Amino acid sequence: MTSSSFTIDLEPVGRRVQVGTKSTLLAAAQAAGVELVAVCGGIGSCGTCRVRLMTGELSPLTLIEEVELGLDEIAAGFRLACQARPVSDVRLDIPPESLTTPQRLQVEGQGVEVGLDPVVVPIDLHISPPSLFDLRSDTTRLKAALAEQGFVIQTIALPVLAGLSEGLRAQDWSARLALRRVDGKAAKNLVAVLPPASPLLGLAVDIGTTKLAAYLVDLVSGETLAKDGAMNPQIAFGEDVISRIAYVNEHAGQHPDGRQLLQDRLVATLNHLAAQLCAGVGNSPQQIVEAVFVGNTAMHHLFAGLPVHQLGASPYVPVIGESFELPATALGLSLARGATVYLPPNIAGYVGADHVAMLLALDVARTQQITIALDIGTNTEITLSIPARRTGRKGNRMLSCSCASGPAFEGAHINAGMRAAPGAIERLQIIAGDVRVHTIGGVAPVGICGSGILDAVAELLVAGVLDRRGVLQKGHSRLRQATNGRLEFLLVPAAASGHGHDLVVSREDVKEIQLAKGAIRAGIEILLGEAGLMPDDVEQFIVAGAFGTYLDLNSALRIGMFPALPIERFRQVGNAAGIGAKQMLVSAAQRRAASQIARQIEYIELTTHPTFAEEFVQALTFGK
Amino acid sequence: MTSSSFTIDLEPVGRRVQVGTKSTLLAAAQAAGVELVAVCGGIGSCGTCRVRLMTGELSPLTLIEEVELGLDEIAAGFRLACQARPVSDVRLDIPPESLTTPQRLQVEGQGVEVGLDPVVVPIDLHISPPSLFDLRSDTTRLKAALAEQGFVIQTIALPVLAGLSEGLRAQDWSARLALRRVDGKAAKNLVAVLPPASPLLGLAVDIGTTKLAAYLVDLVSGETLAKDGAMNPQIAFGEDVISRIAYVNEHAGQHPDGRQLLQDRLVATLNHLAAQLCAGVGNSPQQIVEAVFVGNTAMHHLFAGLPVHQLGASPYVPVIGESFELPATALGLSLARGATVYLPPNIAGYVGADHVAMLLALDVARTQQITIALDIGTNTEITLSIPARRTGRKGNRMLSCSCASGPAFEGAHINAGMRAAPGAIERLQIIAGDVRVHTIGGVAPVGICGSGILDAVAELLVAGVLDRRGVLQKGHSRLRQATNGRLEFLLVPAAASGHGHDLVVSREDVKEIQLAKGAIRAGIEILLGEAGLMPDDVEQFIVAGAFGTYLDLNSALRIGMFPALPIERFRQVGNAAGIGAKQMLVSAAQRRAASQIARQIEYIELTTHPTFAEEFVQALTFGK
Repeated sequence: MTSSSFTIDLEPVGRRVQVGTKSTLLAAAQAAGVELVAVCGGIGSCGTCRVRLMTGELSPLTLIEEVELGLDEIAAGFRLACQARPVSDVRLDIPPESLTTPQRLQVEGQGVEVGLDPVVVPIDLHISPPSLFDLRSDTTRLKAALAEQGFVIQTIALPVLAGLSEGLRAQDWSARLALRRVDGKAAKNLVAVLPPASPLLGLAVDIGTTKLAAYLVDLVSGETLAKDGAMNPQIAFGEDVISRIAYVNEHAGQHPDGRQLLQDRLVATLNHLAAQLCAGVGNSPQQIVEAVFVGNTAMHHLFAGLPVHQLGASPYVPVIGESFELPATALGLSLARGATVYLPPNIAGYVGADHVAMLLALDVARTQQITIALDIGTNTEITLSIPARRTGRKGNRMLSCSCASGPAFEGAHINAGMRAAPGAIERLQIIAGDVRVHTIGGVAPVGICGSGILDAVAELLVAGVLDRRGVLQKGHSRLRQATNGRLEFLLVPAAASGHGHDLVVSREDVKEIQLAKGAIRAGIEILLGEAGLMPDDVEQFIVAGAFGTYLDLNSALRIGMFPALPIERFRQVGNAAGIGAKQMLVSAAQRRAASQIARQIEYIELTTHPTFAEEFVQALTFGK
Repeated sequence: MTSSSFTIDLEPVGRRVQVGTKSTLLAAAQAAGVELVAVCGGIGSCGTCRVRLMTGELSPLTLIEEVELGLDEIAAGFRLACQARPVSDVRLDIPPESLTTPQRLQVEGQGVEVGLDPVVVPIDLHISPPSLFDLRSDTTRLKAALAEQGFVIQTIALPVLAGLSEGLRAQDWSARLALRRVDGKAAKNLVAVLPPASPLLGLAVDIGTTKLAAYLVDLVSGETLAKDGAMNPQIAFGEDVISRIAYVNEHAGQHPDGRQLLQDRLVATLNHLAAQLCAGVGNSPQQIVEAVFVGNTAMHHLFAGLPVHQLGASPYVPVIGESFELPATALGLSLARGATVYLPPNIAGYVGADHVAMLLALDVARTQQITIALDIGTNTEITLSIPARRTGRKGNRMLSCSCASGPAFEGAHINAGMRAAPGAIERLQIIAGDVRVHTIGGVAPVGICGSGILDAVAELLVAGVLDRRGVLQKGHSRLRQATNGRLEFLLVPAAASGHGHDLVVSREDVKEIQLAKGAIRAGIEILLGEAGLMPDDVEQFIVAGAFGTYLDLNSALRIGMFPALPIERFRQVGNAAGIGAKQMLVSAAQRRAASQIARQIEYIELTTHPTFAEEFVQALTFGK
């Protein structure tokens, strides 16, 4: 059976394109508006347009590829996009270095100020060396020197012990030691033996399903020394949580094992990110003595190497809810030999530690205003916090839920959808029948990302092109009949696009936004209902996360995704989860506060909630 | 440059042989009296005579070898002894399966009875599974079920957590849990989630420089279910501690790194031994939830992956003296996912945890008799224990030292020396000028092991062939002039030997025994002197270890290696170190007692002791 065209999925950009059987992958990427580095112009002499085949089949390796690619790369599925052609539908992973312009990453975020309450402290020490008249072991010697300064050591982890003797001798028996608190004890654990005067560094990371945001912090001053983002490399194995769980299930026990593979890829990227951050400030990851990682429950499990099978099947329970600590070495992280990784608590299978971190960063558990805080993604986690004055309880009452809002706001399942990468329409207005677009990077449009499609639907509603049920209404000059016979709205004609194809909004696109909006709004209503509150009672409405940062609040209000509150009650706080992770990195008190938040929250399971179906159907209607 | 003969070292048997350049390795082994399995008679069709090349060069691989050996084996240096010929001096490692008869291994030993004081306890549990109306995480659920039975969990190690969800579901939410004590806390650590009614097993191992002795114990009954020995595979990298340290130093940082390589080989053998012991009683190593390993300080460090460089150079200090615990996974041991390895304390660089274990097993710290306890090897560790009634102190006073007794009693550096393997002379008498020998396995003699050479020297002294200075006295019919012009004594003529060569005792052999005996006796005298005691004050004299088990006490007394005490004061106790390890496996109280012993001991460094040189010279003279 032969086919005249194939579907090419380009990850992590999230673009899909149909190409003829003779098209190279480079041409396919160009057709999709994804700019690959191809210094030589596609003749195969520069080797820069490397892509990795994830699924499907390509034409055989060319001689040029055999020359340009190493054996390891070939074994790992790398090809040159200018040489390879599809022989089936394929899914490609494009490494960041093959893209001309990077994707947009969200590392900035808001959070309240917190004081330092350090988990790891530095101690500078000079120790007298052993002699034939002082035969104490290196450990005994070190402990005695610390005892003179009033410190008692509880444990020295094996990797630290294994480096102790060489380290002390190489540094002529002078060292800066990193000591870590032990809960409820005066004794401390020895984390690292560093050269004298080394800084003590910490790493906080928000592991998003799509993107990673990492922060390098000076643990003594609490100052953020550097921050950076990267794509989550697991995207190549599935764009959302569910497809990654499916991948792990399908490849369970195989070689390479799916769970292990996803963990290894993520850890490799994190090691790379940590090394880059450190290099940027003239330090080494060996000086990172403590790390905090937040993510949704599935990312948390995949990072820690915990099974995710039970997260993919009802009743979707996590392996572990409470916070826990583990040695960085157990995960393959290249930090200080005795560095500890702290993982804050998860609330439920689909409300994870990243949500807890966001609530922590914004002090939602102690706010004096009735507050809704949410983070929109494929799953949207929502918390309602009601201050003590309203309930008569001791602390705030907090209710949380998770709604399956789908991947529409990530650009997936949308006709012209793509992630927030260069060429994506991120803002859109319809003025007097004319469509004005703003793209990321200011280049010609090649697709539309979450905030753009939200704007498009809102503008079509305002212009009367869409009715409240989401049906396109005949009459606008840009409306036309699609090949499936249904109406579609022309956003950008081929001539104005970056790839020579029309960009349209279809009835199906509208429906995706309708489902997402309906789920989010229903979740909000259920929480308010549980607390006996009306929408207007909400005094503060916090929208966190990357999409939440870039969305136009007026568009969200117009389609009714959020309740119709005065605009000044809304706050777009960016990557607050990353900020919460940083707070927990420098403060034991914040860790305790996070655990308290997780214990305090009443989790509402929507799938078994008696009025969810009703609320959802009602919320599907556009408008306030 | 060509040579007409090469030296072939056969390990772990410890035999050396000179062969012509055309000799196969099989013929070389036969010439040395080492019987390799060669089912086909040496024509290369059976593939059973596998040996591994450690150093030196062999003839190129034959076609037969390419057929019989796997690529992995070839890469690892395996050859067929019937096919390969030396092209230089070579050192070969003979795997146990290639030897027709096994070496003698010492696993039996004496020790006092101790009560159980379990570190790990079993709890049987049925847990209610999650549902949409009970969304607690698996960990929370498990902890709650345990709390109902009065148990609080402190930590669950990552590997246990990673297996928890699948384990509970596979066992339909019924499990036998292994819980481990946490010092000073009511809370416990979760070690393993086993199928209902699984036994809880423990592993105790004495890691000797030459031999391993392993014991599989039922942790609930304290019963020893199985025991077995194996050769320490590190022998292939050096027969004693010093040469292994040298190997590690020379290969530091290389690929494969020397330290890592020695650790990996040992761990692989231990995993094999554990699996065999378990299989023998119908269990799996996954049920081993706790393990105790003892060894001298160098074996302890090499096992734990700690550096040994500083053990090989003055002042010879250990990385760590006190006891410590580490996860079995950190060492690559295939036991239960959360199994802990307990390593008892070391006293000094050359008095290790095996000596502590021996003292513990025989209750030397609380004996009411003035006691000397020693374990003879390349290093001989000696402890003198003086009961409270003699010192007026609260507990026994204990003094320890280590003397460099050399490898003579392991058969090394002795002309016809070999380890205690089949064909070794282990008992020898000279009756009316006639030499009567007894060999291990009752076969024709091919060499002489430690107890045999001790007997030989003692008998030559009694017969007047040797004088007290160790000089051979002319007059005996078996004396003859060696090629170096000095006298040698013919023990076994070629015709009566197993390999057609004379077995002789030379002046150099006598000197080796003299040095060993002198070092041991000097150590004993120094300890007695420090305590102000005379040799006759010693009421109990404990001789531990494999050589100590097989040596003839009368011979040891005749040459003056031990002070001249009535024979009934001596006890030969076998592998008491292994018994001490077993006691610590089943009893937390015994672990505390071991740490107390290590703290209580006054270590005497002989190299800086003012009277050591004098004592040593005096002790070189044979006789009581």
